Amino acid sequence: MHTVSQLQDLFVSGLEQRTRPAEPAGLYEPIDYIMSLGGKRIRPVMAMMSCELFGGRPADAMAAALAVETFHNFTLLHDDIMDEAPLRRGRETVHMRYGVSQGILSGDLMLIMSYKYLMEYPDPELFRALTASLSDAAVKVCEGQQWDMAFEGDGEVTIPDYLRMIEYKTAALLASALEMGALTGGASAADARELYEFGRLLGLAFQLLDDLLDSFGDPQKFGKKVGGDISRNKKTYLYLKAIELADEHTRAQLVDLYSHQQAEDASKISTVKGIFESLEIPAHTRGVIDKYQKEAFSHLEAINVDDSSKKSLRDLAVQLGVREH
Amino acid sequence: MHTVSQLQDLFVSGLEQRTRPAEPAGLYEPIDYIMSLGGKRIRPVMAMMSCELFGGRPADAMAAALAVETFHNFTLLHDDIMDEAPLRRGRETVHMRYGVSQGILSGDLMLIMSYKYLMEYPDPELFRALTASLSDAAVKVCEGQQWDMAFEGDGEVTIPDYLRMIEYKTAALLASALEMGALTGGASAADARELYEFGRLLGLAFQLLDDLLDSFGDPQKFGKKVGGDISRNKKTYLYLKAIELADEHTRAQLVDLYSHQQAEDASKISTVKGIFESLEIPAHTRGVIDKYQKEAFSHLEAINVDDSSKKSLRDLAVQLGVREH
Repeated sequence: MHTVSQLQDLFVSGLEQRTRPAEPAGLYEPIDYIMSLGGKRIRPVMAMMSCELFGGRPADAMAAALAVETFHNFTLLHDDIMDEAPLRRGRETVHMRYGVSQGILSGDLMLIMSYKYLMEYPDPELFRALTASLSDAAVKVCEGQQWDMAFEGDGEVTIPDYLRMIEYKTAALLASALEMGALTGGASAADARELYEFGRLLGLAFQLLDDLLDSFGDPQKFGKKVGGDISRNKKTYLYLKAIELADEHTRAQLVDLYSHQQAEDASKISTVKGIFESLEIPAHTRGVIDKYQKEAFSHLEAINVDDSSKKSLRDLAVQLGVREH
Repeated sequence: MHTVSQLQDLFVSGLEQRTRPAEPAGLYEPIDYIMSLGGKRIRPVMAMMSCELFGGRPADAMAAALAVETFHNFTLLHDDIMDEAPLRRGRETVHMRYGVSQGILSGDLMLIMSYKYLMEYPDPELFRALTASLSDAAVKVCEGQQWDMAFEGDGEVTIPDYLRMIEYKTAALLASALEMGALTGGASAADARELYEFGRLLGLAFQLLDDLLDSFGDPQKFGKKVGGDISRNKKTYLYLKAIELADEHTRAQLVDLYSHQQAEDASKISTVKGIFESLEIPAHTRGVIDKYQKEAFSHLEAINVDDSSKKSLRDLAVQLGVREH
């Protein structure tokens, strides 16, 4: 079994060894650019770990890992165009560097490349199962992005709506990465499905934790500006739960606070955080995260392999900020 | 064997019978919109005809036909964004009607849907062969679009460059539609490849004919404004061949004419057409088209099925303006 950082290194060197067509350069350069921006490579590492869990080698999961990481980066590329984001991982976004048309086209090719990587599996049954997993996650990611954009509008958003959105947009691909890795390692469909559920619930916990830390994290550790979601009026789990629990007066106050966008919003952030705290939203959210974590790990436990070989997946969950209880 | 128009009707009713998820509506509405804009449905008809050639029923090719038509419409949708085109088939383009972000995301989902349609084939070997065909064509379409955009710049374009561009951008998907249809009809890989070649060469002939008619077609029949490529300075086969054949003076004149963009360009169009005619470009182009046509039909002939069953594919070629000689 390899550690998280060993698998990150293995993946990156595998990625670098792949030679893409040199031409047309304008099409492939932006792909190399975004793929080399780095990141934690969580999804490919998950795929490789999941493969190892069933006795496979990381190399067996490499093509699936490339598929899932290329797909993930395709979504980042196109989402950055939709969000008009200037920066990604501290560097220029693809569309800022190469133009919007180029960003659209190179992103399209990345989506196709994700499917093509799976062709490296000669077994047609395995190929079919992997393609099904990728496609199901891919549809969910698009639907999740659609809900996310729709929630920025005026319509009412319920907590189940929100949970479905983050499940589709974030958790489904993590789940698919684990499922695909398991399949490349020779897991049964049932065991691969347990890992899918582990990833799905882990993804939900991870996203809710991200929501919580965005408002209540330690600024030193969180890495992003605390309060960003509040200042952007983002209807996260915290906001939606507060709306549910607040009395009429406080609810009206929250709705009003979330209807303006100001540049200088330190007082808005502290007012909203005060409301969240008075309603015990942080503790409640932590409880929901714990519930998802617990459920996630129960799916990992259900897999009938030596317990020590699950250690690296547990370590990875901890790196995501999600702990077993 | 069904006629072209019977298969068009079969395809459209098959398309209409498919119920897509109702939600999120914002994601699926633009897809329904562009898929219902019509067009000749050449690619799905090709897939169904090719299937029938080997004794299959049109219904056997339906999922492949949906895949190829959905893929084709995805490329139209994203190309329209890149070209900032306001109209498609006389109607608003998707991004004009629903916004650029929505156009990008709905197009992405259409690409994924293309792959998902192929999952309807339960046989894993067939599924794999179909997915390989779609992916190969899909990469070529992106590369062709890249070359097409690159040719708008200042760099020199050779005739082989141009022929590769139209092969990738236009012919590859026609070829794949025929190949996929053949595979769903139970054709051998070799026969499916003959149909691929038939489609590839037919596509080249079709695109060169389109170039020719754009400058020398009958305005009543062509349907588009004659001279559009000339007024947009598009480096088509006609232009590139003229550059190759012209003396130094005429070449400089052509390069100069293609370096300005004017609103009122009737005199430019007639000057360029005069140069093309003096260099016998129309006759030369017609000769190249004939060569591709002949080669295309030789691949159709090579397939060992009853000759009369090839009639509908020949009729379809005629509808594309391409005739057997």
